[in-house]
Amino acid sequence: MDKITLQDPLDMHLHLREGALLKAILPFSARPFSTAVVMPNLTIPITTTKQALDYKAEIESLSAHFKPLVALYLHEKLSSQELEQAKAAGLFLLKLYPKNATTNSDQGVDNILSPQMLKILEIAQNLGFILCIHAEDHGFVLDREYNFHPILTTLAQEFPRLKIIIEHISDTRSISLLERYPNLYATLTLHHIALNLDHLAGGALNPHLFCKPLLKTPKDQQALLNLALNAHPKVAFGSDSAPHLIAYKHTHTCSAGIFSAPLLLSALCSLFEKHNALDKLQSFISQNAMRIYALKDIPHKTITLIKKPPNPPKLPDGLYMPQIFPLHWSVDAICSHLL
Amino acid sequence: MDKITLQDPLDMHLHLREGALLKAILPFSARPFSTAVVMPNLTIPITTTKQALDYKAEIESLSAHFKPLVALYLHEKLSSQELEQAKAAGLFLLKLYPKNATTNSDQGVDNILSPQMLKILEIAQNLGFILCIHAEDHGFVLDREYNFHPILTTLAQEFPRLKIIIEHISDTRSISLLERYPNLYATLTLHHIALNLDHLAGGALNPHLFCKPLLKTPKDQQALLNLALNAHPKVAFGSDSAPHLIAYKHTHTCSAGIFSAPLLLSALCSLFEKHNALDKLQSFISQNAMRIYALKDIPHKTITLIKKPPNPPKLPDGLYMPQIFPLHWSVDAICSHLL
Repeated sequence: MDKITLQDPLDMHLHLREGALLKAILPFSARPFSTAVVMPNLTIPITTTKQALDYKAEIESLSAHFKPLVALYLHEKLSSQELEQAKAAGLFLLKLYPKNATTNSDQGVDNILSPQMLKILEIAQNLGFILCIHAEDHGFVLDREYNFHPILTTLAQEFPRLKIIIEHISDTRSISLLERYPNLYATLTLHHIALNLDHLAGGALNPHLFCKPLLKTPKDQQALLNLALNAHPKVAFGSDSAPHLIAYKHTHTCSAGIFSAPLLLSALCSLFEKHNALDKLQSFISQNAMRIYALKDIPHKTITLIKKPPNPPKLPDGLYMPQIFPLHWSVDAICSHLL
Repeated sequence: MDKITLQDPLDMHLHLREGALLKAILPFSARPFSTAVVMPNLTIPITTTKQALDYKAEIESLSAHFKPLVALYLHEKLSSQELEQAKAAGLFLLKLYPKNATTNSDQGVDNILSPQMLKILEIAQNLGFILCIHAEDHGFVLDREYNFHPILTTLAQEFPRLKIIIEHISDTRSISLLERYPNLYATLTLHHIALNLDHLAGGALNPHLFCKPLLKTPKDQQALLNLALNAHPKVAFGSDSAPHLIAYKHTHTCSAGIFSAPLLLSALCSLFEKHNALDKLQSFISQNAMRIYALKDIPHKTITLIKKPPNPPKLPDGLYMPQIFPLHWSVDAICSHLL
């Protein structure tokens, strides 16, 4: 096989940033992807319907035939009025950051199980929101997702009609949890299935492979890769592509985030082909998310890839994209179906 | 207690580099320490007696009342003549780097248990050398020291009269090994007892805390700290202070090594005081190594520290030293006993 077509690729976890950086990086996602969940942890977090709609409009004004699904940044003071207004405006995703868990999360939630938060989540459940969680506590870096399980369990049991997404699942111990509760789902990045801690710190340290949740063991990587290769029905692709200017990477306080957007489809094809799982890629990249998030009215695109190493993408000034592994597939054509 | 005196501090694992960097960093170690084991992984490794003596003479010409114990870089072609000549010249330390395990180890040993290497080690045992080992294999970065245990076991059993040092011990699983074989010993760094992977990568990534062996779990840190606080008789302090120019740290291929030399004694006093173990510091910093390495004729120094936060050291251009934890002790006086 030397040609692959993918229908309506979806990236269910994406950082598009703002200002000049937004303009510079948006095409990498907006051209090949149909739809993306856009994360709200901007410098000023997106905590209101108005901010979300403005951000959505800005992204739409800069792209064509691409649907940004902007998540609302959850915080302790979110009112029921705001939630109702958001839902009425077509927003349906809430993003929960534990306070200080990652980039721009200092306005995140301090006590997730506080009466106030549980009240907000009750309203969210009733309105039909989907809850996307950066599921890490503040313990030892390799155990943070595992340590978060009790909170996930409580939320899954307390709100059985609330769909809860474990964002960027990274720990093999989370898989059984995912399978135990009907309302738990996950997004999965390229880097957590293609890399482990050895790639970050086994040879020279590569700050461009530093992310939260931290890359874990080869055993974790393998278990997560298997989720992808089998297109586990509760798992959707979400790249968590998170660009940082080189100046914020090559420093003694290096920001967390891996920039992967420019070559995601090439990389996924190469990885799935290597493991003889190309037949599962369509589900992993699109159908699972369509079903989990009950997506409707998304832009239709057909992406054709051919077996040929891709040209290095022309990156905006100040950005660097790490080469994760050799790529054998190139996007040959992007067809947007307008009718 | 607001005053501590330490006699003859010894740093049994030190990187002094060469050229301008050597001149710039040497005083940080040569002033407060009596003696140090100086590692031979220079750009051109120190594989001959002549190189070792030249390096020793250079260090001595740049310092006073400080004894550099230069280790000879072990490699497959080291001859018995070279070993005999080295011993006759007063050298008694061999450093074994598995090929490509860390900085400047590309000329290290590929197959440690090859007949040729075993022959060299047999000669080394008979001549009374001490074998210092960077005890890591090439597996998953957090398991490299543990994976190296079979080689340590073989060497410890095969050469019962050869003292073997596990350099910069980093994994709690190595402690039982150390206690099982009479001829196994270890050096222990400040960073492996004061830090764990959280400090490197739990918040922002700090490349200045990137080292080999990689910092491990809080459990490992605690077990190693206990070795130090109890002045375990088979464990000697060795800082592994390893400066790299900032340009080699703030990059996508960051070199491994933590520069700690300038404030080692302040830090050790602060740490031991915090854990009510100041009475063990003299053994950890000097007596254990005196006994393990059977040191004689070392320069005598008395270091007085007082309870006062130290002034930040004036670092050479191009170097940066990470602040590991708050320091409460300052070196107040260094007395070299000349007679």
